[in-house]
Amino acid sequence: MDGYPFTHRVRVRFAETDAQGIAHHASFVVWLEEARVAYLAEFAGGYQAIRDGGIEALTTEVHLEYGRAAVFDDVLEIGVRCGEMRGARFRFTYEVVRDGERVAHGWTAHATVDAATHRPTRVPAWFAEAVLRAEASTPTP
Amino acid sequence: MDGYPFTHRVRVRFAETDAQGIAHHASFVVWLEEARVAYLAEFAGGYQAIRDGGIEALTTEVHLEYGRAAVFDDVLEIGVRCGEMRGARFRFTYEVVRDGERVAHGWTAHATVDAATHRPTRVPAWFAEAVLRAEASTPTP
Amino acid sequence: MDGYPFTHRVRVRFAETDAQGIAHHASFVVWLEEARVAYLAEFAGGYQAIRDGGIEALTTEVHLEYGRAAVFDDVLEIGVRCGEMRGARFRFTYEVVRDGERVAHGWTAHATVDAATHRPTRVPAWFAEAVLRAEASTPTP
Amino acid sequence: MDGYPFTHRVRVRFAETDAQGIAHHASFVVWLEEARVAYLAEFAGGYQAIRDGGIEALTTEVHLEYGRAAVFDDVLEIGVRCGEMRGARFRFTYEVVRDGERVAHGWTAHATVDAATHRPTRVPAWFAEAVLRAEASTPTP
Repeated sequence: MDGYPFTHRVRVRFAETDAQGIAHHASFVVWLEEARVAYLAEFAGGYQAIRDGGIEALTTEVHLEYGRAAVFDDVLEIGVRCGEMRGARFRFTYEVVRDGERVAHGWTAHATVDAATHRPTRVPAWFAEAVLRAEASTPTP
Repeated sequence: MDGYPFTHRVRVRFAETDAQGIAHHASFVVWLEEARVAYLAEFAGGYQAIRDGGIEALTTEVHLEYGRAAVFDDVLEIGVRCGEMRGARFRFTYEVVRDGERVAHGWTAHATVDAATHRPTRVPAWFAEAVLRAEASTPTP
Repeated sequence: MDGYPFTHRVRVRFAETDAQGIAHHASFVVWLEEARVAYLAEFAGGYQAIRDGGIEALTTEVHLEYGRAAVFDDVLEIGVRCGEMRGARFRFTYEVVRDGERVAHGWTAHATVDAATHRPTRVPAWFAEAVLRAEASTPTP
Repeated sequence: MDGYPFTHRVRVRFAETDAQGIAHHASFVVWLEEARVAYLAEFAGGYQAIRDGGIEALTTEVHLEYGRAAVFDDVLEIGVRCGEMRGARFRFTYEVVRDGERVAHGWTAHATVDAATHRPTRVPAWFAEAVLRAEASTPTP
């Protein structure tokens, strides 16, 4: 997807729909996480690699704007990009697209903490470098 | 809760936690919806009353900021207020509190549409008036 | 509820419905867990008390039969009873009722394990006794 | 997978784990549904084809036995087979496997109903035939 170094695909589950006949808006939050995890697997050794280093990445903010409804069995492409990495904080932006039409877009903010103490701890250097390399390859639109 | 005409209580389910040992961030989106539904039941005849009138309220935006982690079995109080109602659009703001400490806060935006055509349709007058009455009773902080 | 020492109430969330317009069948599994947790809070110091003793209770079997559909905003009463406690194993049975009509019923089986090693470990005596006392007070129908 | 005409793959989402550090037991119910939907897409024109014919397939029973825990990011293979189709009823059996080891197994029962009246209606002939063809190709183990 233009402007995104990585695209992840999900298919809307029946369990993710609601009585309006569309995908429930909370389902998107879970999809963004799945897309983020897939991005990290592609570029930075996986989210588990961060956890294995005794670090947890907490989600500190979620922002989503919904433009079109998604329905059961829709295949959605999620563009993912990571940026604004500073100290213990980083941010992802996303675009959710179906057949070339934007369904939703948003961003999430994260903070890395020590898994034992839950105190903020810098994003590991190897992780930051892996992400910067991946992002550098794709111009911001 | 100060500045909120309505407070709704939830207890964190085990199914709502994740492998970080805390409530998953997407769970809050579901709780805000439950709090919104309870607000409408209290002041405006319930969400089902809107649906019975052939109108669906879609969620068009979600914004959440997480300050503290919630854990299994926590009792959370959710302050709810509704405002900025214009044409087919309205907005809710929320504060999630545990034992007087803020855990998260955020807002959601909504649009009313005709259930059959999914075209924007004005918020029903009886609904708008009920909400305005409820809100007028509580000063914004 | 007749034949159950404990009843727990849930209200169907909008997020728990699906595009059939009814509560998704997986939602019941989460409600049974919430009812189980409430039962343990009432009679046995709460599920967290077991966890605080270094023991986890795993779910080893789930069985559910659905008779009637539940819909958004339905208030469901869940009868809960615990029995067949032997060594590291115990079992709960449930009945989900709306306005006196049975919506679903089922049972779950559980095993207690050491939280660190995940090896089976006997149900703590204080827990077994508390449950037996609670169950003794209600005749099986 | 031996004895199953169809295998579906899922990867455990972080949102699907719980504070025991493992996939929550209710997540499996959703995965079985996803596997069932994928089976129908492969052999019988998809679940939406049934719905398009004015028929809904309700889930009437769920039975699951959990043998091993699944954890975040695990890739699980789900063997799916459909059988015992009679009148308005049919049944699926499943086996959930990770790296050749069985994690869980179970079955679900379903009933087809008229989408408008919710009255039982026979499984459409084209659907029954498509399933029988698929099943005939794989001997029961």
